[in-house]
Amino acid sequence: MATAEPTQDQQAPIKPGADAPRAETEFAVMPNPDDPRLTEKVPGIDQDGQPVTASVTVERPLTLFLNGREIVTMMTICDYPEYLAVGYLVNQNMLKPGDVITEIEYDEDLELVVVRTEGETDFEEKLKKKTLTSGCAQGTVFGDVMEKFESVDLSPEAAIKTSWLYSLTKKINTAPSLYLEAGAIHGCVLCKEDRPLLYMEDVGRHNAVDKIAGFMFLNGWSGRDKIFYTTGRLTSEMVIKTVQMEIPILVSRSGFTAWGVDLAKQVGLTLIGRARGKRFVALAGEGRIEFDADHGRAEDEPEHLKRKGSR
Amino acid sequence: MATAEPTQDQQAPIKPGADAPRAETEFAVMPNPDDPRLTEKVPGIDQDGQPVTASVTVERPLTLFLNGREIVTMMTICDYPEYLAVGYLVNQNMLKPGDVITEIEYDEDLELVVVRTEGETDFEEKLKKKTLTSGCAQGTVFGDVMEKFESVDLSPEAAIKTSWLYSLTKKINTAPSLYLEAGAIHGCVLCKEDRPLLYMEDVGRHNAVDKIAGFMFLNGWSGRDKIFYTTGRLTSEMVIKTVQMEIPILVSRSGFTAWGVDLAKQVGLTLIGRARGKRFVALAGEGRIEFDADHGRAEDEPEHLKRKGSR
Repeated sequence: MATAEPTQDQQAPIKPGADAPRAETEFAVMPNPDDPRLTEKVPGIDQDGQPVTASVTVERPLTLFLNGREIVTMMTICDYPEYLAVGYLVNQNMLKPGDVITEIEYDEDLELVVVRTEGETDFEEKLKKKTLTSGCAQGTVFGDVMEKFESVDLSPEAAIKTSWLYSLTKKINTAPSLYLEAGAIHGCVLCKEDRPLLYMEDVGRHNAVDKIAGFMFLNGWSGRDKIFYTTGRLTSEMVIKTVQMEIPILVSRSGFTAWGVDLAKQVGLTLIGRARGKRFVALAGEGRIEFDADHGRAEDEPEHLKRKGSR
Repeated sequence: MATAEPTQDQQAPIKPGADAPRAETEFAVMPNPDDPRLTEKVPGIDQDGQPVTASVTVERPLTLFLNGREIVTMMTICDYPEYLAVGYLVNQNMLKPGDVITEIEYDEDLELVVVRTEGETDFEEKLKKKTLTSGCAQGTVFGDVMEKFESVDLSPEAAIKTSWLYSLTKKINTAPSLYLEAGAIHGCVLCKEDRPLLYMEDVGRHNAVDKIAGFMFLNGWSGRDKIFYTTGRLTSEMVIKTVQMEIPILVSRSGFTAWGVDLAKQVGLTLIGRARGKRFVALAGEGRIEFDADHGRAEDEPEHLKRKGSR
């Protein structure tokens, strides 16, 4: 493979005036379901026509600007708009490790966030050159993303012990979360060995991933020795984002898609899905898995739940 | 509210040379999990390091063009590329009821689909006028979508009996599907009374919705007397799409988001979520629900599964 671009852990945090970079501690970030801005109680009726109150997740539109340019409007719970903005740009390859961010401005009333860089980004230069026949920048972005994907070199020494996996899922499943509180939400967790480090949630799975990428970029955390856990399905897009973050191991309680598996095999990503209770299936990068867990009394989910498990 | 635009059932099918429009029969379209192109068997290992074979869904990139213009690349199981193409354009308000489609060309090898219209669409005109400060067409599209949303007038006479709801979910849950076969997939079903009519699946929930919208547009089916069922969460985007299709009732086994509920209330959409077994919660448009079902012996899901139910 081609030489990888400078990794994120060689990149000092670049937001001027920011606090010192955060240390890699367990649950450095975790959901706060008690934050009143994130859920609301809505009155309704149940199957018997009786009044009932439901707790629902609050999502808001957030429009992202890169320098003067409107990029996208995202629906998000808006708990970490700065991480989401930076992470989106990083995962779309619009921001590269060498870019210097001079300011991140979030305006809650206008529902927008502006990321400003020193000088014009490579993405903006390319956009200027785009011909009028293309209706959207998505084509450019997709090409760049695949370029980086093909040049990434995931760590061969990284490993995952099955004991860590079970410990992680237990810690993640028991952590307070909007998911447990109100449902209708996806979660992603950046982990190291048996410790969840960053647990981000959002209505859209990709937002949760992007918030993690944004945090990592701003704090100079490397993905190379990490494990990425998601509640979402292991689609090609999830695989691509994980690889872009240089994380060598991806785990989900949900299922796979064939292209996600192919991409994972292509770059040597360890891909573990349908991870529920003690069970899982690994379809790529199996060499990183160390089978050290003593299953003992199976804590499997009952067979009749298997259908849900396959989602 | 402003006068609604001409409804889809006033629109003759406009694909030249097409078969006569399809009649509204039960399971006019349903998943075909036996189609060999849609799943593949992948070898891997399980939690004990033992070899196992997993059935996974096959997704492919599909690039959509409107006349000469590249619009978007979507990941899809590619069972109905023409419906997906037309439905995407309709739901993004890039195609309007008055537009005449002259050709829909799907190229399996190049993984693209081109929709051609007689004359330039309103969307393409607007795009030309867009200033250079916007990086993507998404901003324009979002504005148009909200315009139409505010002008739609959902049918007040439409109703849903709880007996229909239970009958529908049973028929849908027992129909053969990729979901049951391989997991990692979302399903959407257009229904009428107690009959599922179009059951579409895809890796992305929005693709499944768009395929239904495309089928309806090409066959001149109205949404006004229909019920829309989805496995996905009742996000603002799902509510917006349902309303754009002029369907007055939206049902999901999953949960709500606050903005989805607000939008539903704003336009008078009946919104039923967490629909599992005999249970559900309705948070908007409750007036359309008729409580005729005899619950009798409860077929509720056990309490300890409530967490999964809230997703």
